[in-house]
Amino acid sequence: MDFSLVLRRIGEAAPRHRLDIGDPDLPPPPELVEALRGGGDFRYGPSEGLPEFREAVAEVFKADPGEVVAVAGGRHGLAALMWIFRKRRLLTTSPFYPGYFDIAGVFGLELGLVEGGDGWIPNFAERGVYVVNYPNNPTGAVLPRGKVRELVDVAEFVISDEIYRDIVFTEFVSPAELSPSSVAVVYSFSKVFSVPGLRVGAVIAPRDIAREVARFNRATVNVAPTPAQRAVASVVHLLPRRSREISQAYLRRVELASAELRLRFTRPGGAFYLFPWVGDDVKCFESALEAGVSILPGSLYGRGGYVRIALVEPEERLREAFSAINKACGGG
Amino acid sequence: MDFSLVLRRIGEAAPRHRLDIGDPDLPPPPELVEALRGGGDFRYGPSEGLPEFREAVAEVFKADPGEVVAVAGGRHGLAALMWIFRKRRLLTTSPFYPGYFDIAGVFGLELGLVEGGDGWIPNFAERGVYVVNYPNNPTGAVLPRGKVRELVDVAEFVISDEIYRDIVFTEFVSPAELSPSSVAVVYSFSKVFSVPGLRVGAVIAPRDIAREVARFNRATVNVAPTPAQRAVASVVHLLPRRSREISQAYLRRVELASAELRLRFTRPGGAFYLFPWVGDDVKCFESALEAGVSILPGSLYGRGGYVRIALVEPEERLREAFSAINKACGGG
Repeated sequence: MDFSLVLRRIGEAAPRHRLDIGDPDLPPPPELVEALRGGGDFRYGPSEGLPEFREAVAEVFKADPGEVVAVAGGRHGLAALMWIFRKRRLLTTSPFYPGYFDIAGVFGLELGLVEGGDGWIPNFAERGVYVVNYPNNPTGAVLPRGKVRELVDVAEFVISDEIYRDIVFTEFVSPAELSPSSVAVVYSFSKVFSVPGLRVGAVIAPRDIAREVARFNRATVNVAPTPAQRAVASVVHLLPRRSREISQAYLRRVELASAELRLRFTRPGGAFYLFPWVGDDVKCFESALEAGVSILPGSLYGRGGYVRIALVEPEERLREAFSAINKACGGG
Repeated sequence: MDFSLVLRRIGEAAPRHRLDIGDPDLPPPPELVEALRGGGDFRYGPSEGLPEFREAVAEVFKADPGEVVAVAGGRHGLAALMWIFRKRRLLTTSPFYPGYFDIAGVFGLELGLVEGGDGWIPNFAERGVYVVNYPNNPTGAVLPRGKVRELVDVAEFVISDEIYRDIVFTEFVSPAELSPSSVAVVYSFSKVFSVPGLRVGAVIAPRDIAREVARFNRATVNVAPTPAQRAVASVVHLLPRRSREISQAYLRRVELASAELRLRFTRPGGAFYLFPWVGDDVKCFESALEAGVSILPGSLYGRGGYVRIALVEPEERLREAFSAINKACGGG
């Protein structure tokens, strides 16, 4: 089953609990909604992003505004960077985020896999340009500092997909902190502010790479949506508080799962997914769907035998969904 | 001088009249502004676009919703289609729209030129996949029906960039009307609704091409901004009236220019640009800028000796700008 088939099956089934796509259920900050309403300026802006957006994001990442480029969501920044490094050996970790293969597929890129080890933490030994995603989708793994060091030491360059960096239950270390000159961070406001439909994110990278990303912008979308850039720039100062709040909320859901879900999984260090072992992921997907809960087969992530559960419902509803999954997938 | 240098010069000069970038000055329809304010749904949507968007656009283009894909602005649709046809001989007309070369440059594509003839109307004789833009930027030319026939007869496929199709002072015939199976239309709401910063447009194409565009979407931005898709879908019914209104408004500006601008130009059949002969385009650019008016040198469009003037100010202000251009560029 490929992704579109799975999504079609889910669409037809119209289950009571949608725990498949990572569409956050927590409401966006009211300040952002307010800023979006107030936006009456719909003009173009420069391909690298509006100055106010670049400055606001630069402050958060302790970077220079010249190192920040606004992109049309995390996917857009990833596409830009994978394209820029297309002539190098590209690697990602397994289980993998399928979006990287959507990009590689369209642009005809090879993407090698490095297997995740204990607790989904790989050993980084091969040379190459790494596309990594921590906190990880689908496993929730977060690299300890020593592993981040191992990664930047072996990598020619790191494309660090940090769209879940604000949802953490442990210390998060960005590769950019250890080796700023060989890392491009892909950031997005989709998950932290619960606004994936807006399509606004940022790449934070050394200036020469940032300029290449701006060129990719110009060639593909001209400029990331400007009213969204403006609204987000005005609420970037909320990030630390928002990050604490949503990390607590998602952590409570993880704890609920630990208590109630009768499946074996590595406890996530961040993001909002569980990746439990179920034995037969397609059967579990089908049975859970029949019981009114959509989750995703691990085969989509390169790991048959596992399923991905997105914790994107309030606790009371999750409790009900977990009970259905327990029955459907043999844990109960 | 390349584009970014020209824009930097303009930014530094901060002229009183900005007639360079095609950023429409007419306000967006209040119904659209209202719909954007009301949008409280920031979730993901399918890569091919929201069903309500596809249906609304399909109705306008007398197409099937399966032939419509939402894209993140006209540029995004063009990038998708040029990428999809990358292995074919790609051609465009000269003077050209530089955005096509931004795309070709990043994706390493060759883009051949077919010279514009009398009144900027080329003879279409070469085989290949054409990227054409009528009403034309920068000349304002519109192809008469016989020329559209000549184009579709000789072309293997046509990528028809119709972002100015709603601003016309003469009959506009889309190549898609004559040969729906070999034409993909790129449409955008940027110019007609004066909202270029929103980044929402559509590709209308045969189903197999539409599916490829949706794949390109998924790989590059995942989905076009969903609140913008939703808002636009709710006001698509305004298009005929809006088109009449803005065509009248831009035509009045063209008539003002015909009366007051002492430069020779082919009267445009649509869009909101003039492309007059000035002899030395860089000198005219510099002198006009010094006199407080930014226009663009024709060399950026492959035609030294001409300049592009965007009619994006109200008539009273344009009158003042034309007078400054007359003095600066030797017409007065």
